[in-house]
Amino acid sequence: MSYESQLNEVIAAAIPTQASAEEAAWARLDSLTKPPRSLGRVEELAARVARVQGTDRPSVAKKAILLMAGDHGVVEEGVAAYPQDVTWQMVANIVGKGAAINQFAESVGAEVLVHDVGVIRDLSDIPGVVLRKVAPGTRNMAAGPAMTREEAAQAVMVGVQAARDAVASGVQLIGTGDMGIGNTTPASALTAAFADADVAAVCGRGTGLDDDGVSRKVSAVERALAVNGVGDLDPLGVLAAVGGLEIAALAGVVIGAAEQRTCVIFDGFISGAAALAAVRMCPVSAEYLFASHRSMEPGHTVQFDALGQQPVLELDMRLGEGTGGALTMSLIDAACRMLSGMATFAEAGVDDKE
Amino acid sequence: MSYESQLNEVIAAAIPTQASAEEAAWARLDSLTKPPRSLGRVEELAARVARVQGTDRPSVAKKAILLMAGDHGVVEEGVAAYPQDVTWQMVANIVGKGAAINQFAESVGAEVLVHDVGVIRDLSDIPGVVLRKVAPGTRNMAAGPAMTREEAAQAVMVGVQAARDAVASGVQLIGTGDMGIGNTTPASALTAAFADADVAAVCGRGTGLDDDGVSRKVSAVERALAVNGVGDLDPLGVLAAVGGLEIAALAGVVIGAAEQRTCVIFDGFISGAAALAAVRMCPVSAEYLFASHRSMEPGHTVQFDALGQQPVLELDMRLGEGTGGALTMSLIDAACRMLSGMATFAEAGVDDKE
Repeated sequence: MSYESQLNEVIAAAIPTQASAEEAAWARLDSLTKPPRSLGRVEELAARVARVQGTDRPSVAKKAILLMAGDHGVVEEGVAAYPQDVTWQMVANIVGKGAAINQFAESVGAEVLVHDVGVIRDLSDIPGVVLRKVAPGTRNMAAGPAMTREEAAQAVMVGVQAARDAVASGVQLIGTGDMGIGNTTPASALTAAFADADVAAVCGRGTGLDDDGVSRKVSAVERALAVNGVGDLDPLGVLAAVGGLEIAALAGVVIGAAEQRTCVIFDGFISGAAALAAVRMCPVSAEYLFASHRSMEPGHTVQFDALGQQPVLELDMRLGEGTGGALTMSLIDAACRMLSGMATFAEAGVDDKE
Repeated sequence: MSYESQLNEVIAAAIPTQASAEEAAWARLDSLTKPPRSLGRVEELAARVARVQGTDRPSVAKKAILLMAGDHGVVEEGVAAYPQDVTWQMVANIVGKGAAINQFAESVGAEVLVHDVGVIRDLSDIPGVVLRKVAPGTRNMAAGPAMTREEAAQAVMVGVQAARDAVASGVQLIGTGDMGIGNTTPASALTAAFADADVAAVCGRGTGLDDDGVSRKVSAVERALAVNGVGDLDPLGVLAAVGGLEIAALAGVVIGAAEQRTCVIFDGFISGAAALAAVRMCPVSAEYLFASHRSMEPGHTVQFDALGQQPVLELDMRLGEGTGGALTMSLIDAACRMLSGMATFAEAGVDDKE
């Protein structure tokens, strides 16, 4: 069976979340020993997790960051501030626990699982990497499709399987993470295509481009959208033409989380592009999706608007790796403990309003 | 020795934080395997903790919420949405682990220590309460001073001692928490007085007042400021005239944290009023003070402006108890782990920018 057929089966298997569980959660939230709705957005987070998990006593005790890595042919266009070797070097750093995501994940008790979906270098000599390489990097999307349709579907299925494996091991909250030098350029192209946005409005400085670098990025994205005739493509076609292998896998994490009825937090601009791709391919996956932080990348806000989502954190971050998602896990954990563990007015013998 | 004399000794003992440690922290932050400054405000948090702790490897592994409880004579003016008995009932609920703060604190591994500074009811029959009652509630500030000057100083010293005890037990990060039916009214009066703000601009709905209730609050605060001649008083005098016993104790927690060179997070509007009082009495304590979230109370923003602080979370919360501070502890924990635990480019063998 082709990867695309497998993916279509996953998409068909994803079903809506349970409105009745959210209603039960709100009833319980309003009976707990606090003024009604006085925890604001934290109560909303708790109610959404309840809806996904189908219970008014939700829990996200076990957490994982599913980090996908890949390289990008479009770096030929001079769109990256760091050399391409940094992709594999950072993969090694992450499995060696030296990166920011390791520290943030440890802070919230989340495991970090690093997948090679499309790094150029062979990584089989680096212990701890989950080896799922679909291809050694994408092709330059400014000159033609970054991937074939079947490569893109295969990469999406890598993410679906990663979500399945995580849930099978007991994970209740998944965060998406990315590593791939040059990946803000395909993320910009996907955002422009899926949100029907102006290219210049979705191209930022990434890890530190100067003005000339941003101009090269805008030009590369415009050429990529044109040369691939993106306006006429379906969502999987867009993802193949101007996406990335790790971005496709992250879209698969979102779709796989929906199939597995599990909450999934998307992180920064790269993960946001993947979330958009996921929701375009599998609209019901939006119900399982939680925004984390608002990145410094201008296109991130365009993504939130297109997804109808609002981030919970605004910390001027622009790192990726899943760092914003990891920080958000602590808020969702607190929200679930609050809903599940607090006493009601009746249980605690506290007088309600006069 | 009078409590005021004791307090003056504590204030004299508080010294500035170490700029050199912050400089060393920034040098290290810029050498870690991430684009420089790409973690935005999280890096700023890490650098500030480094400055307080005097090291570029800070840690906030051990955390505590110091929660102060008290009652308020001004509830006679019809300024509270809940009956006054809820103060002691919620104290019992918190030591019984049924309140929101218990769940949030558990989520970040923080201990919650509940102090009776001024609850009307005798609480010696409730196991787990730290018994430090200065008086059984304040007097009605709309008719005269809420406390004597010596009562206020004694309450501040309760907080100072709580901070000392916490630090002696190894606590590296303190959060402030409050419980006291009616306490947004004295908090509004203190904010108006210390920030020289319009009374109506600092009076909100508290735990759920209607429009008439807010009008009564504005009237009570205006009368309290006038009848006590607050414009002519020094900071301790203002705190005694229009403060609260638990608010004075929270100001003491901030001053005590400064004396003990320990980071202290202030929570919502009540804690913000206490932080303002602390900084007016002991200006250097501002260097040890971390803002947490922006509450729905309109006067909270007035406090941030007066303190020169910006909150890290905006979650539409308005509960108090230290809930916003507890959530912020997770961000500060992640920030410190990042600064202390990440690998440098050199250590990880990752190429830096071209």
